[in-house]
Amino acid sequence: MGEKRIEDYVRTIPDFPEKGVMFRDITTILEDPEGLKLTVDKLCESLKDVDFDLIVGLESRGFIFGVPMAYAMHKGFVPVRKRGKLPAATISKKYDLEYGEAEIEIHKDSVKPGQRVVLVDDLMATGGTMAAACDLVEELGGKIAKICFVMELAGLAGREKLKKYDIESLVVYPGK
Amino acid sequence: MGEKRIEDYVRTIPDFPEKGVMFRDITTILEDPEGLKLTVDKLCESLKDVDFDLIVGLESRGFIFGVPMAYAMHKGFVPVRKRGKLPAATISKKYDLEYGEAEIEIHKDSVKPGQRVVLVDDLMATGGTMAAACDLVEELGGKIAKICFVMELAGLAGREKLKKYDIESLVVYPGK
Repeated sequence: MGEKRIEDYVRTIPDFPEKGVMFRDITTILEDPEGLKLTVDKLCESLKDVDFDLIVGLESRGFIFGVPMAYAMHKGFVPVRKRGKLPAATISKKYDLEYGEAEIEIHKDSVKPGQRVVLVDDLMATGGTMAAACDLVEELGGKIAKICFVMELAGLAGREKLKKYDIESLVVYPGK
Repeated sequence: MGEKRIEDYVRTIPDFPEKGVMFRDITTILEDPEGLKLTVDKLCESLKDVDFDLIVGLESRGFIFGVPMAYAMHKGFVPVRKRGKLPAATISKKYDLEYGEAEIEIHKDSVKPGQRVVLVDDLMATGGTMAAACDLVEELGGKIAKICFVMELAGLAGREKLKKYDIESLVVYPGK
């Protein structure tokens, strides 16, 4: 029997949040001290040759993985949040969802021009939220050093939307 | 000049989210690698004599502090989320807000009977959300070992609502 891999800690839940979706649940990674450590350590390892200043995490599962990475690598952490949650001056970006649209924000003073930024989220699906977050970072003058995901749904072609960036996903699922 | 304290990293924003509120912004702690490290290390230090199995963090600023604590102390992490966000079977609890009510959930299988739990959030205000989270943990058979906050607004008397528990706040503001 080999060592447990990250995908062994993921729980798959059919038909959440709607029928036909196979939801990849990361709470079962977090509940297990070994799963949490393995995943954060692998994310950090994916940055060992990357020169960067800070980590930007997307609300809220990007906080779950991005903050321990920042802590372990002694970097700053900046949250990208849904509209209305950040208290100081922000810039915002709308993006399309399957039905309707959403808006995310970042504090204006959180990324300084020329800073090298790593963006983190749990899952790459269509890549829409991450593309909007990259736009916000670049609008503030940040340089995108790398994008890290725990999981990727390859069937949704998020890589196409993010093709100008260096991307690493720890676990790739072929479907949607 | 002495060493920087946690409160030196906090940014106070008047009139957010509404007039008369002095909002204590923790994003300025996180942005600074020293602020993040200091705060997470002090939270961990507050648990050095506490026997516990896992950390429960409240959405979403409790994730920001709770996950790096769990990572650093090699414990599991369990999220308490707003209604509808957790994909597997949950139990939920309603609690009163200033206007109306809110509801939080925890996965049914996330805390095992007899496990010793530390709960974490960024701020103790009225204590209503934390009291509801404690009820959920106890309903699953968990024992509450300690509650940790980064900040406490002493003027809102949250300690009264949580008086049966051991509580530690790193920074106490006398007002509301």
